[in-house]
Amino acid sequence: MTDCIFCKLAAGELPTNKVYEDDEVFAFHDIHPVAPVHFLIIPKRHVDSLAHTDDSHQALLGRMLLLAPRLAAQLGLEQGFRTIINTGHGGGQTFFHLHLHVIGGAPLSPNIVELSTH
Amino acid sequence: MTDCIFCKLAAGELPTNKVYEDDEVFAFHDIHPVAPVHFLIIPKRHVDSLAHTDDSHQALLGRMLLLAPRLAAQLGLEQGFRTIINTGHGGGQTFFHLHLHVIGGAPLSPNIVELSTH
Repeated sequence: MTDCIFCKLAAGELPTNKVYEDDEVFAFHDIHPVAPVHFLIIPKRHVDSLAHTDDSHQALLGRMLLLAPRLAAQLGLEQGFRTIINTGHGGGQTFFHLHLHVIGGAPLSPNIVELSTH
Repeated sequence: MTDCIFCKLAAGELPTNKVYEDDEVFAFHDIHPVAPVHFLIIPKRHVDSLAHTDDSHQALLGRMLLLAPRLAAQLGLEQGFRTIINTGHGGGQTFFHLHLHVIGGAPLSPNIVELSTH
């Protein structure tokens, strides 16, 4: 039993536009894309954030990063892509199930971060 | 023999403001920070980009991500941080030795990407 929407997406309990799935990892298109291609790679097993990981997550984290270029290539991102993890409120994290953004399909600005004016 | 500046930094052949070092990984402050704290985590052994990784890099990539929150905490980023990897020219990669940006120390905008107007 969980109230985490990402857990429910990964378990198939809520509909989503799936990119990839295996025993440990689930990937799906972001419902609010910030670029022509914008999908998320998440662990199926709940982890709040990157700050909540320990050595037991090393293989999982490595697998998530390895998957990014493979899935990006399948989605036509030959020119490149950007991978982002926001951690904690100060890092812009708004949803607390660890997720790796993969973004591309349009030229990305070299500006890799925008500071909040709030 | 290499002309890669990041390889030389990791080998101690060029001076840098080191954050962390072990047998596989080197971390140092970015010389052009985009936030109060901005450091890079790189593998000591040269890899052009995330698109040039294979299964043999899984443990290394997992280790780089595990290190991010630990080093961020040491540098006072209790409120959170953002981790970014740019891959390929279209992803905004300008230096072709794989590097993970870790950014924080000021509130980050929820805007995780800016599309280029060029």
